[in-house]
Amino acid sequence: MQAKPPPATALFSRERLIRFSDCDPAGIVFYPQYFIMFNGLVEDWFNEGLGISYQELVIGRRIGLPTVHLEADFRAVSAMGDQVVLSLDVKRVGGRSLTVQVRCTGRDDGVLRMHAQIVLVTTSLREHHAIDIPPDVRAAITAASGNNRPQTPR
Amino acid sequence: MQAKPPPATALFSRERLIRFSDCDPAGIVFYPQYFIMFNGLVEDWFNEGLGISYQELVIGRRIGLPTVHLEADFRAVSAMGDQVVLSLDVKRVGGRSLTVQVRCTGRDDGVLRMHAQIVLVTTSLREHHAIDIPPDVRAAITAASGNNRPQTPR
Amino acid sequence: MQAKPPPATALFSRERLIRFSDCDPAGIVFYPQYFIMFNGLVEDWFNEGLGISYQELVIGRRIGLPTVHLEADFRAVSAMGDQVVLSLDVKRVGGRSLTVQVRCTGRDDGVLRMHAQIVLVTTSLREHHAIDIPPDVRAAITAASGNNRPQTPR
Amino acid sequence: MQAKPPPATALFSRERLIRFSDCDPAGIVFYPQYFIMFNGLVEDWFNEGLGISYQELVIGRRIGLPTVHLEADFRAVSAMGDQVVLSLDVKRVGGRSLTVQVRCTGRDDGVLRMHAQIVLVTTSLREHHAIDIPPDVRAAITAASGNNRPQTPR
Repeated sequence: MQAKPPPATALFSRERLIRFSDCDPAGIVFYPQYFIMFNGLVEDWFNEGLGISYQELVIGRRIGLPTVHLEADFRAVSAMGDQVVLSLDVKRVGGRSLTVQVRCTGRDDGVLRMHAQIVLVTTSLREHHAIDIPPDVRAAITAASGNNRPQTPR
Repeated sequence: MQAKPPPATALFSRERLIRFSDCDPAGIVFYPQYFIMFNGLVEDWFNEGLGISYQELVIGRRIGLPTVHLEADFRAVSAMGDQVVLSLDVKRVGGRSLTVQVRCTGRDDGVLRMHAQIVLVTTSLREHHAIDIPPDVRAAITAASGNNRPQTPR
Repeated sequence: MQAKPPPATALFSRERLIRFSDCDPAGIVFYPQYFIMFNGLVEDWFNEGLGISYQELVIGRRIGLPTVHLEADFRAVSAMGDQVVLSLDVKRVGGRSLTVQVRCTGRDDGVLRMHAQIVLVTTSLREHHAIDIPPDVRAAITAASGNNRPQTPR
Repeated sequence: MQAKPPPATALFSRERLIRFSDCDPAGIVFYPQYFIMFNGLVEDWFNEGLGISYQELVIGRRIGLPTVHLEADFRAVSAMGDQVVLSLDVKRVGGRSLTVQVRCTGRDDGVLRMHAQIVLVTTSLREHHAIDIPPDVRAAITAASGNNRPQTPR
């Protein structure tokens, strides 16, 4: 895939500076850091995109969003000082899971650095088992998705 | 997949304690930490399994091993204090890439916590482009693999 | 020390959300994360406060800013979801070192969470030894400090 | 302080490899990583030196060991591939706090890389306030300290 800005349909995106602390002795992002960045993007998406407090969800309601599956491709390196755009699209809303496509793209060069498909499951943090996506979360995702509506369970 | 010890054919494995610093507010491993653990396992595999100094490879010879693709499944949680076994099998040795299967399994319960398939590429850290797997690395992998010989390029 | 907003004289400050990934199994910031946050604050201070590209400094000019001494007090916990203010004051500009006071304060409650005094040294990343603070960096710090002028070397 | 092995009186020590993931774009340990390493050393000290399960302490008994004060000096860099010795000495056992001296020293060159004095407080993780050091912890520390007995509260 060549230089390409994040799709206009991206549900949610945030800019971020690639920091010294994100990088390894090769001077580029150490790849697990991407997943930490995307965890933060999901937090921001809940707080700012869906209007559902992530803190209240995890601490107050004791509902977690662990990742159960992911597939990632790393296409180009991100170096210290790069400004990147992290974007998130909802691909599927299941009964107890949520599939999101995330991308990291250079803000200035439009080059896709990496992208991943991540399956998150709503779980009870009391018993660490999957629970139904709470109705308010489901409603907020559906409302936010609008025209780029994710596939919903039958 | 049910409780099952790491396969007897595992090429390389190491025990590791799940530490406080690996865990998140839910008290379980924050998933990007698994990839940091496996990065360490690859280091140990080079140093101890293949007899090739990872430090010399990266710093001396300026050869990197970035991940270009990964697929991971998270099956069961790992909690602080768990003893786990991290194991690595070589699945394929390409011209410039290496596919490894990694697993994290409970040492005491034999439960598979997560597993991933990771494609690593040998790159020049000077120019950040792929280079052929160095002959000594290829030879060491072939020798180490022995009977559980990975698929080699045609 | 009781609830108190960051001093009006703070040279540089930034707001930051305490994230899931900053927190430990006790649900509060794992203290090494504060130092990662402050490393980021120093980056932002250079880029935005001093007008000197941190990336250009480290990668282009091969000048590092390692910490050689620090003293830190942790007064109150920061929990996931807290909005905090990270602030930085220059206390002393030496020939080859820079002493900064950094603070993390709750944005909404004004409670000082932790503060630290950090001594940074300008070093050559080629030879890992101390070098004089570059003239442009010294000039920018002096200009930025203005009335809350740090102590300078005699 | 010049090259000097960890003192023979060190209460507890462990060897550790400096890994790729510990290092920054300068190729040396990113200093917050030292505090993550020492957090692990305290875990090992409890589990193996004191015979008190750190997991049981934190998860079962809901007792935390947050750092409330630290002072650190960084003397020499640690690079990827270095084997270091992390050591811990108890300096003082208070009513609710514990002061430890920690050191990172090159295993092969005996060079002190950094050392820190860290004050830990025993806290209730339910209410995040200080509690008395539990009697079994106090007894184990006293027994382990033996001749290099830390200063105890009057």
